[in-house]
Amino acid sequence: MRHNARMTEPARYSVLIVGGGFGGLRAAQCLKRAPIDVTLIDRRNFHLFQPLLYQVATGGLSPANIAAPLRAVLKRQPNVRVLLGEVVAFDINGRGALLRDGEAIPYDTLIVAAGAANHYFGNDRWAEYAPGLKSLEDATHIRRRLLLAFEAAEREKDPQRVPEWLTFVIVGGGPTGVELAGTLAEIARYTLRHEFRRIDPAATRILLVEGAERVLPTFVPRLSEKAERSLRRLGVDVRTRTLVTDIQSDSVTLRSGDGEEVVATRTAVWGAGVQASSLGRTLAVATGAELDRAGRVIVQPDCSLRDHPEIFVIGDLAHFRGPDGKPLPGVAPVAIQQGEYVARLIRERARQARGPNPPPAAADDRGRARPQRPFRYVDRGIMATIGRAAAVADLHWVRFWGYPAWLVWLFIHLIMLVEFQNKLLVLVQWAWNYFTWSRSARLITGDEPGR
Amino acid sequence: MRHNARMTEPARYSVLIVGGGFGGLRAAQCLKRAPIDVTLIDRRNFHLFQPLLYQVATGGLSPANIAAPLRAVLKRQPNVRVLLGEVVAFDINGRGALLRDGEAIPYDTLIVAAGAANHYFGNDRWAEYAPGLKSLEDATHIRRRLLLAFEAAEREKDPQRVPEWLTFVIVGGGPTGVELAGTLAEIARYTLRHEFRRIDPAATRILLVEGAERVLPTFVPRLSEKAERSLRRLGVDVRTRTLVTDIQSDSVTLRSGDGEEVVATRTAVWGAGVQASSLGRTLAVATGAELDRAGRVIVQPDCSLRDHPEIFVIGDLAHFRGPDGKPLPGVAPVAIQQGEYVARLIRERARQARGPNPPPAAADDRGRARPQRPFRYVDRGIMATIGRAAAVADLHWVRFWGYPAWLVWLFIHLIMLVEFQNKLLVLVQWAWNYFTWSRSARLITGDEPGR
Repeated sequence: MRHNARMTEPARYSVLIVGGGFGGLRAAQCLKRAPIDVTLIDRRNFHLFQPLLYQVATGGLSPANIAAPLRAVLKRQPNVRVLLGEVVAFDINGRGALLRDGEAIPYDTLIVAAGAANHYFGNDRWAEYAPGLKSLEDATHIRRRLLLAFEAAEREKDPQRVPEWLTFVIVGGGPTGVELAGTLAEIARYTLRHEFRRIDPAATRILLVEGAERVLPTFVPRLSEKAERSLRRLGVDVRTRTLVTDIQSDSVTLRSGDGEEVVATRTAVWGAGVQASSLGRTLAVATGAELDRAGRVIVQPDCSLRDHPEIFVIGDLAHFRGPDGKPLPGVAPVAIQQGEYVARLIRERARQARGPNPPPAAADDRGRARPQRPFRYVDRGIMATIGRAAAVADLHWVRFWGYPAWLVWLFIHLIMLVEFQNKLLVLVQWAWNYFTWSRSARLITGDEPGR
Repeated sequence: MRHNARMTEPARYSVLIVGGGFGGLRAAQCLKRAPIDVTLIDRRNFHLFQPLLYQVATGGLSPANIAAPLRAVLKRQPNVRVLLGEVVAFDINGRGALLRDGEAIPYDTLIVAAGAANHYFGNDRWAEYAPGLKSLEDATHIRRRLLLAFEAAEREKDPQRVPEWLTFVIVGGGPTGVELAGTLAEIARYTLRHEFRRIDPAATRILLVEGAERVLPTFVPRLSEKAERSLRRLGVDVRTRTLVTDIQSDSVTLRSGDGEEVVATRTAVWGAGVQASSLGRTLAVATGAELDRAGRVIVQPDCSLRDHPEIFVIGDLAHFRGPDGKPLPGVAPVAIQQGEYVARLIRERARQARGPNPPPAAADDRGRARPQRPFRYVDRGIMATIGRAAAVADLHWVRFWGYPAWLVWLFIHLIMLVEFQNKLLVLVQWAWNYFTWSRSARLITGDEPGR
């Protein structure tokens, strides 16, 4: 019981990390071998690779393929303790976090990396009819909805009602919406071919609705255009400059320059907006930190809170003002780099706290920016995939699309996946899906079997 | 729309199969290329490979790895229509089955292969505390329970209560119980090593409770003894000749020759009994067929019902009297062989129904037993695995155990898995788990995150 023995040693510098997403996990990993006690708390026992959630929602991958148990990832790091729990309050003066079951976890430094959830712009009742895609449960729920729609179409006795089962509305033309619409079009056209006897899945209608003037609005116009062309080639009905004004169980109402249109559909998916975790508000109330409109905590140039250098907020929960004056986007690379930056800062502080003769810098500090400098996001580019052999990539020094972009997308997502086994399983399944056009993880699970 | 065109042709001989398990799916496959319209109805959209459910429950495999979408399996068989639905009643005189949503499906011949569910011998309230392992939802629920117990132990503030979180009671010493107990012991001893900081997972106590005088009572005594020795070597506390008399949220009461014992535990798993699907009773009421005590329908030597040669019952739902006077066991090979037998019988009937000059027998009839003969189960043997590199196998002409039996077990289960992709993914994961001692599908999913 080596670990238990360590617990009785005098208290060391302690860091509490809330959230095991890209930012929180990376921060914990970058504190490896530091003379610091790290506690990582998450409501889940796994790290989730969110960029591939849409592949779970469309039956291409299994949930476990894109999730890595946090304990397994961190088992070789004896200074990290993983706790399954939910933080509900902070005691800023006492330097502690309170869990739902009443336990208080003390800290010297706090890193809040609690991420974001779906945001329906005040129309929370839309959530029932148009689920978002932020968690594994969301993904299996959407998978169930999509697959059940085809089953219901096959069973529908009234031929007039078949089209509403075979109409899918994806709200939001960002990367998630584009990826979902492209994959769903492929499934309808190719994977489900020969599987039904009464309906023709190829008659499926997929609407991708985006309020801005083009899909992928964070990309340059030329790549948006490439993506839109790829989507149209797959048969996706792309509706830009179009707003969703209502969502019911059997319809979605759209408004554009041409007026209002009611689309009869049984299946809508929400990919339009996210809002920061409610822990942002909790933290703001406790510390006086400011929130932006999306509920993100506005942070200092070193990711800490004003007047609270011991509290850092990173990842999707943080509003970090970028060089262009706009907040950094809520993407994995920002969270990862902030996690690395904050970990370096904390290592430095812990070293200074130990006395006037600090030991030499640890190996992973060598050659990197000095932690005292403000955080600077190194933007290596953005990419989105549209479907089989189609993607767009903007690496700033080069822009490309189609097959090459898709290969780069595959490669980058594979190497970013945590845990080698997942890389291998995902590679096998992608290769299989590519060559056979099949998707084998098409399970309808949940509490209401059948109809 | 080739298939839709076919639907307007004059009605052909029609077979309705209820249930897409081993028996129902095999029957459908064996009717390939027959001039027969087959409808396969299941409450699920996938065929489930139940023998590996315990590996999902213990985080070694993902649900999709042991499930194959029925539509995908049968897509190249245009005479089969798959319907997602639940049969609630039969109209025996009108030759139709009624679905929950009111649709009636007509048939010339009916095959009922609806399987079995957990059976608590009249103590249905035990189901809440000791879930059984029959469906994918059961497996992910048990996975959640097992993993949460370790998390709760790590979080437990009262050291007196840690042991009850680390005590697991498996009820039933059949193959499922033995496989679960062995795998859980391995996980506690090896997989979770280094993952916790306060508790020592190796201190986990696993009780395997069996009413009979030995585990694996359907095996010969020598193999039961080998299995028990393997379990004890893994640290499992094997309790034979012991009955469960009560199950509460925090205890299981055992009774044996030594008297009564209350075991403090938060986690029990039920592997003790199954009962035939309630469709057996529905069928018995409609046809006057007899049921046995486990709710199975007693069938004729050709698997049909007395006075109803057009109705067959196969698999776990059927009570087929074996040569020793006892019913055939509820195992996959029985269901598969019954499915094949019944399909041959139906092909023969359809051929006779078409006129005096039947076409030559189809390729897959060649050389097999003539369908007019009664069904005869060819028992190729039974096997059970205990954990890593340990299993017992009785192939009747040879009995073996340990590493060789485990390799044979692996091989047979791999080749039996439906769909090539699943074989590949399972092989990759088994190899990975074997060499790294890890199990990566350890996800706690469900509606109550954290505690």
